[in-house]
Amino acid sequence: MDTELNHSDGLRVIPLGGVGEIGLNMMVYEHGDDIIVVDCGLMFPEPSMLGIDIVIPDITYLRDRADRVRGIFLTHGHEDHIGALPYVLPELPVPLYGTALTLGFVREKLKEFDLDSAVDLNVVKPRESVTVGPFKVEFIRVSHSIVDGCALAIRTPEGVVIHTGDFKVDQTPVDGELTDLVSFARYGAGGVLALFSDSTNVEREGYTLSERLVGEAFDEIFPRCPGRVIVAAFSSNVHRVQQAVDAAARCGRKVLLNGRSMVANVAIARQLGYLRIPDEILTDVREMPHLPPEQVCMITTGSQGEPMSALTRIAMDDHKQIKLEAGDTVILSSRFIPGNEKTISDLINHLYRRGAEVYHEKVSEVHVSGHASQEELKLMLNLVRPKFFVPVHGEYRHLVKHARLAQRVGVPEENCMVVENGAVIRFAGGEAEVAGSVENGRVFIDGKGIGDVGEVVLKDRKHLSEDGMVVVIIAINQQTGEVIYGPDIVSRGFVFEDESQEYLDETKKIVLDLLAGMAPEVLNDWGEVKQEVRRVLRRFFNKTIERRPVILPLILEM
Amino acid sequence: MDTELNHSDGLRVIPLGGVGEIGLNMMVYEHGDDIIVVDCGLMFPEPSMLGIDIVIPDITYLRDRADRVRGIFLTHGHEDHIGALPYVLPELPVPLYGTALTLGFVREKLKEFDLDSAVDLNVVKPRESVTVGPFKVEFIRVSHSIVDGCALAIRTPEGVVIHTGDFKVDQTPVDGELTDLVSFARYGAGGVLALFSDSTNVEREGYTLSERLVGEAFDEIFPRCPGRVIVAAFSSNVHRVQQAVDAAARCGRKVLLNGRSMVANVAIARQLGYLRIPDEILTDVREMPHLPPEQVCMITTGSQGEPMSALTRIAMDDHKQIKLEAGDTVILSSRFIPGNEKTISDLINHLYRRGAEVYHEKVSEVHVSGHASQEELKLMLNLVRPKFFVPVHGEYRHLVKHARLAQRVGVPEENCMVVENGAVIRFAGGEAEVAGSVENGRVFIDGKGIGDVGEVVLKDRKHLSEDGMVVVIIAINQQTGEVIYGPDIVSRGFVFEDESQEYLDETKKIVLDLLAGMAPEVLNDWGEVKQEVRRVLRRFFNKTIERRPVILPLILEM
Repeated sequence: MDTELNHSDGLRVIPLGGVGEIGLNMMVYEHGDDIIVVDCGLMFPEPSMLGIDIVIPDITYLRDRADRVRGIFLTHGHEDHIGALPYVLPELPVPLYGTALTLGFVREKLKEFDLDSAVDLNVVKPRESVTVGPFKVEFIRVSHSIVDGCALAIRTPEGVVIHTGDFKVDQTPVDGELTDLVSFARYGAGGVLALFSDSTNVEREGYTLSERLVGEAFDEIFPRCPGRVIVAAFSSNVHRVQQAVDAAARCGRKVLLNGRSMVANVAIARQLGYLRIPDEILTDVREMPHLPPEQVCMITTGSQGEPMSALTRIAMDDHKQIKLEAGDTVILSSRFIPGNEKTISDLINHLYRRGAEVYHEKVSEVHVSGHASQEELKLMLNLVRPKFFVPVHGEYRHLVKHARLAQRVGVPEENCMVVENGAVIRFAGGEAEVAGSVENGRVFIDGKGIGDVGEVVLKDRKHLSEDGMVVVIIAINQQTGEVIYGPDIVSRGFVFEDESQEYLDETKKIVLDLLAGMAPEVLNDWGEVKQEVRRVLRRFFNKTIERRPVILPLILEM
Repeated sequence: MDTELNHSDGLRVIPLGGVGEIGLNMMVYEHGDDIIVVDCGLMFPEPSMLGIDIVIPDITYLRDRADRVRGIFLTHGHEDHIGALPYVLPELPVPLYGTALTLGFVREKLKEFDLDSAVDLNVVKPRESVTVGPFKVEFIRVSHSIVDGCALAIRTPEGVVIHTGDFKVDQTPVDGELTDLVSFARYGAGGVLALFSDSTNVEREGYTLSERLVGEAFDEIFPRCPGRVIVAAFSSNVHRVQQAVDAAARCGRKVLLNGRSMVANVAIARQLGYLRIPDEILTDVREMPHLPPEQVCMITTGSQGEPMSALTRIAMDDHKQIKLEAGDTVILSSRFIPGNEKTISDLINHLYRRGAEVYHEKVSEVHVSGHASQEELKLMLNLVRPKFFVPVHGEYRHLVKHARLAQRVGVPEENCMVVENGAVIRFAGGEAEVAGSVENGRVFIDGKGIGDVGEVVLKDRKHLSEDGMVVVIIAINQQTGEVIYGPDIVSRGFVFEDESQEYLDETKKIVLDLLAGMAPEVLNDWGEVKQEVRRVLRRFFNKTIERRPVILPLILEM
């Protein structure tokens, strides 16, 4: 799978994550002996990844070339773009480049891992450039659901590559800082070799709504609420928090910030001047019971129905300080992340049981996306006018549809490259081709273990989760081949033992009968005994209760 | 929780399922010593219900009064209305009442359980009535995503109750059989005590689109497809199948039916005259490779991305007879059932990887809902003009919103009763109240086990699924208190054993050290030894790899 490359041979761009999937964004740009990396993101585990905490990209390719990696450029501070840094930096201790807020969030994250002092953080402003080896990288401001996001214009010996990162074209951003279309147009006029562009929202027609509309929705909803207002949002969405704070201030509500990351990220954003919150408006949870409900606004994490979050505990009527009452209002001001729909739906039902009114993106304009819709994607393509187009940051169908969109605005079909992770896209002499692929994949983090949980362990967890486990203990005399103990049967997650003693006794008898029929020489062949125990129990369980637990025969040699 | 009732006291209506949840529909109507039940549905397990096959309502209330139950009335043949019958009928062998297709599907289901000969099935036609004890029940035709659905008008000594079942008001149904608004209006004019109405789509404004539009979408898509057309739909959606067959016929495609339930349900519907499919148009899978792609239409199950379905295997390029090619088209003609979004999204991505084009409800009009939207719900309320209104068939937020809708069309707030499962709604002398609640809940079916898997077993499965299991085996001499074997460490789903021998050896040493430090009298106290093993290993695992497996110490007394 790994292709050794000729290093003098053009520009090689290799996605190690984020192409054909949402999350894990990481792109390698390589020329001669120099490598730069764009983004270093994580992915939250899918339901099938049992017990996994987070997922990071497989960086074998970079590890094998660690001495050539000159730096990691970060487009913005979302977890799917910076979240793998704590795991990657110890192996690749290279300088980081990003805007002030992006690096503010990175620093906070590295602190948790005691890595902050060891890392070289370089703040870059929009329209500034950084030269690293043969690459000159300019940061270009884009609007997104986090402040201080940037696209990158990467000048290489083979030409300019525009790497959009996540973006939308918000014509009325909350801070007035527009997506820098002028810079994109300037590069377009000068000639662009390739555009790598965000495909997340390619299935949406028209334009993505402006973040400012959410503020207007808050201003409509807040004053109408007779009770408390609780806004659940992502803590990195600084403009969302700003708009909730402003709406609260306008109707005389104090603001309670809740959730570890909300408190931390608001502190960073205030310190760096991205959030304006007067101290007087803030309150804390102990003051809550003493404030009239109509003077309270809580801004919290937990919008995805996370089981341990304050919002879920409030919804379950299991929060010490906050009891919801009729007249209270909860605004879920974020996306229903795919896979979380059921959990969020349960959360909403519980909030209604408490008597609260609930607003969310499916019934009200309390959330807008941070990603460009079709018209914005076309605008980007028409401004940049790239020779080659590579859709990134999306599932496979998004890439296919984004490539079609590019063709509709004039990129020749043969110049649209739908690739997957690991593909080596080689640009040389104005031509492009997919030149093999390199090792890539997903590395699971489970507790402190990085990558030690693989398919075998996950398969066992899945099997255990479905019908539990039955342990059969037998001790056999080594000399005589006699059974001197057991069989003992212990189970977990299989049947309710308090009520199933009879069934487990029957199970025991099946094993006893099996052993009784075995010659001593067979009993001395552990492998054979184990296999037979598994076989008869599998058949017995299947016939009697149609379950398939993990059967673990333990033979003790004594 | 269980309230013993005064049996001479009015009409009591008790939902045993389906109120505050989607699925498990079952409603008890009780007067004096007579009980009838409406519907007997199942629910497919939620992701947290590990290893559970299906869920049925707890019928303790009925079991305790089995001699009074006179019959079960079925509104239509969907699983969430008939699926619990095979589990309930052995305990309540009462007559069933329903329309021809509903009972056709019921008979097929009972056959699988060898119950079909024992059950008394009574076919009722729309506008016909059945008198059972003090109840006179008229069947009223409604349109829905299955043919032959009916609402029930239940005449009781306390007045008429209208129980809508699932419905929409399709003004152009495929078979021309309209929702019988005339009958609803007739009952409304005569005076209705209470309306129990479907709340599923209360969050949708306007009218639900007609099923006929899906046929029009097929007629647009099919002729444009250069390759094969694969339509995935629910097998019970007879009109959907009819429209796919008709569209195939119109553009000269042969039809391949795929999926066990598709084949079975089509056979039943054809036999009863609900489906018109000429034999000549049908083909089978062995003929597929010999037909030109543009002459093929496959109608299949598997629209939810079920892992073993033909469609998933086709998408994974793992199907013997069918290999997708560029130019082939897949139409997912069904709803994305909440909880399945991620799986369906993965399916779509794989289909695009194979080069196919994919249509589904999010991008095209290839599916319409079977449930009434707000305007239809208001129409029902205005025709029936009930004194009391009880929203059913919905999650809690749906019930709340449906009650508000009823108030907007004139039902007094105090006459709108938002209740949950188990509530006893008592109607007497023109008044209504919630008079306590009865035992209710969910019973899990796992293999052949009915209700034996409860919270303890599920909790164990969840724990096992997250970090697996570590078994520690120690044999102790009963007399001397000496350790004569072990500790042996065996794990599943915890760490990858092939690479973790060193770590497991370290684990063993931790236990050895613990045992070495124990006095013989402690060693004889198994409970104490087990607890200590758990304690030291929990601490060790947490410190070294931050995982929390199920720890199962097994002490053998020898």
